[in-house]
Amino acid sequence: MGQTITEKIFSEHVGKEVYAGEIVRSPIDMVIGNDITTPISIKAFEDGGFEKLVNPEGFAIVLDHFIPAKDIASANQAKISRDFAYKHNLKYFFDEKDMGIEHALLPEKGLVLPGDVIIGADSHTCTHGALGAFSTGMGSTDISFGMITGGNWFKVPESIKVVFKGKPGPYVTGKDLILEIIRILGVDGALYKALEFTGDTIAYLSMDDRFSLCNMAIEAGAKNGIVAYDDVTKEFLDTVGANNNGLRAEPKIHYSDADAIYCQVIEIDVEALNPVIAYPFLPSNGHSVNQAVIDDIKVDQVFIGSCTNGRLSDFKVAAEILEGKKVARHVRLIVTPGTQKILRDAQKAGYIDILVDAGAVVSNPTCGACLGGYMGILGDGEVCISTTNRNFVGRMGSRSSKIYLANSAVAAASAISGYITDPRSL
Amino acid sequence: MGQTITEKIFSEHVGKEVYAGEIVRSPIDMVIGNDITTPISIKAFEDGGFEKLVNPEGFAIVLDHFIPAKDIASANQAKISRDFAYKHNLKYFFDEKDMGIEHALLPEKGLVLPGDVIIGADSHTCTHGALGAFSTGMGSTDISFGMITGGNWFKVPESIKVVFKGKPGPYVTGKDLILEIIRILGVDGALYKALEFTGDTIAYLSMDDRFSLCNMAIEAGAKNGIVAYDDVTKEFLDTVGANNNGLRAEPKIHYSDADAIYCQVIEIDVEALNPVIAYPFLPSNGHSVNQAVIDDIKVDQVFIGSCTNGRLSDFKVAAEILEGKKVARHVRLIVTPGTQKILRDAQKAGYIDILVDAGAVVSNPTCGACLGGYMGILGDGEVCISTTNRNFVGRMGSRSSKIYLANSAVAAASAISGYITDPRSL
Repeated sequence: MGQTITEKIFSEHVGKEVYAGEIVRSPIDMVIGNDITTPISIKAFEDGGFEKLVNPEGFAIVLDHFIPAKDIASANQAKISRDFAYKHNLKYFFDEKDMGIEHALLPEKGLVLPGDVIIGADSHTCTHGALGAFSTGMGSTDISFGMITGGNWFKVPESIKVVFKGKPGPYVTGKDLILEIIRILGVDGALYKALEFTGDTIAYLSMDDRFSLCNMAIEAGAKNGIVAYDDVTKEFLDTVGANNNGLRAEPKIHYSDADAIYCQVIEIDVEALNPVIAYPFLPSNGHSVNQAVIDDIKVDQVFIGSCTNGRLSDFKVAAEILEGKKVARHVRLIVTPGTQKILRDAQKAGYIDILVDAGAVVSNPTCGACLGGYMGILGDGEVCISTTNRNFVGRMGSRSSKIYLANSAVAAASAISGYITDPRSL
Repeated sequence: MGQTITEKIFSEHVGKEVYAGEIVRSPIDMVIGNDITTPISIKAFEDGGFEKLVNPEGFAIVLDHFIPAKDIASANQAKISRDFAYKHNLKYFFDEKDMGIEHALLPEKGLVLPGDVIIGADSHTCTHGALGAFSTGMGSTDISFGMITGGNWFKVPESIKVVFKGKPGPYVTGKDLILEIIRILGVDGALYKALEFTGDTIAYLSMDDRFSLCNMAIEAGAKNGIVAYDDVTKEFLDTVGANNNGLRAEPKIHYSDADAIYCQVIEIDVEALNPVIAYPFLPSNGHSVNQAVIDDIKVDQVFIGSCTNGRLSDFKVAAEILEGKKVARHVRLIVTPGTQKILRDAQKAGYIDILVDAGAVVSNPTCGACLGGYMGILGDGEVCISTTNRNFVGRMGSRSSKIYLANSAVAAASAISGYITDPRSL
């Protein structure tokens, strides 16, 4: 019987053919925690009397939400992870020394391979599916179970096949594709399902686009998002050294069978797609950028960053749009790179200088403002256009603030005018 | 009768010879507020029914403490200053667009001239005395009075003459000179007095050193710190364009008379001075760096930044010390430049790459961790060596944390070993 890529990954891991709906106990290749969620995992681990990680090289801690510490509570919280990392001599512990948002950092470090099963105590762990892995968010105690046993229980998800057709137009990115999907499916339309992204459009999508795409699978309720391995994947893995970093064997490459069973198939005519903006207060509240221009939406803050859109191509397009321009007087433009490497690459390419000349402030890599952490929190009644992934009430600050989700080109164009702006109109 | 430089500045401003102890109503050249203090000034201004600033080009607002907003409260607080700046079309309003710590930013923008009278609602406003100005911190309502009238009441301070003798040895900086003065005087030894820094050592001090020196005058209780104009001052003013920025007339250069009257004279043999570290919990608790090494003090965090030591020379010396080295595993090194320009200059010079390679995280310019704001807050029991200006209980976070104040070379050397380290020993 034909299998989806997600079913194949689990089949390979459990050593027999398994299908959607089956409960399996699968080994896990990488378990991820961050500064918020890991302390809970550590407590469960230590309360259980466990002293050794079953697979220290399969456990990564990334401090990314609130460090450098934004307050005493976050300093104390980070200390729990630091102490654990030192005690267990963790190879993959990332703090101020090599900062990055976990979902940008791990792929860049070569720690995500096609065919992997990955769990992380962060909902956007689904990002890693962009490399052809099964990757999903779980709670902190599930992380403990992974730390202790090296595996966990999964219900193999049904898959929704998304078929993207045609070449994306100017400023139509991975972010727009996923916002369109979420608009169609709603925020629970893919509940506990795999969103498998296919079609001839995929070949046009850079890895950055694919990370954006898979990153927001959870915003439709999906268990995971996944893009199968191809030349773009291979080039990325070669560049980051993932194929030969000595951590694990060769990537395990899977493709869905032609007769695999899907619970739903969605076709998107990408050539006809405009950049999409999700209006407050749900990621599913997608509008065409044209509509936003008509709606005359004034913004106080523009945020370009996060695990969704804090990568090099985001700063490239923002720099192209902002070069020689100035951010509108009433607007603050906050740029937050996903990792230290992205920041440095953007500096070397001259993007950072252009953005700062235009009036941006560039922070260190951090989750920062995206989750209302720090580094760009919204005050009462303020409006932000943001490249992040969630626009729930109060997500980035005050409950009376509003967030419009968009790609980095729309955000950059809006910074110039101070109103949500179609970058194609510049 | 002979006059001190401080007496001469007031005499020139009020149009008659005035002396220490006299109460004068002096015009003010520059009034400064920040995101914390300005909202109170604005409220007093508006509650008084005032609608126009008497001298809009003599009022600068710098948002530097808590932006990009660290929380909803700071976002709302910043909005008060933003709205006021837009309403009054303030020429000198600095927010995310051109970020910097006020005491680093204003001199760099050419807004501080020798002979000026400057007040700012921030205690470290005394920094600007490094350019031969009278500059002092005042409360927010005093700032309102300056906004409304363009002047304020001052008691002309008595002066303490500090005579520095000899050439500073390796890694002995302006920071060490002021820590030594504070050690001698105590934290209230210069209460409401001018600290006038003189002697042949001054010629060896860069502007960065002089800013550090004057910055911490307040830590001995001084009303102001001041260094008279010389070739170093001239070069700085020429470089930043302060002599010809069209804001004000030529700088007014004053020198103390040989027969000026001082309430105290302190001589320091700078050649015999080691780098000084102020132990917790007072800036006056100065120890020789040698003592710190003997005391075997382990640190969790190293902070290089602030209005005291967040300038280019600080990152230069830190980069020289950290080049090819790594920050100790248990240590986090947080680098916070004073201004956007300093950050960019440090990038161009390669210092930032060296620091990041060593394991530092570099933030955007901000007051940040120095005042326990954000971006490097200390948790319970943590120890920090910091280039900032205050080591009071809980200043940078938890009340059980400890701060050792030092220069940037000592901080950088300590980051490598993880213990407070004499940079001369490397």
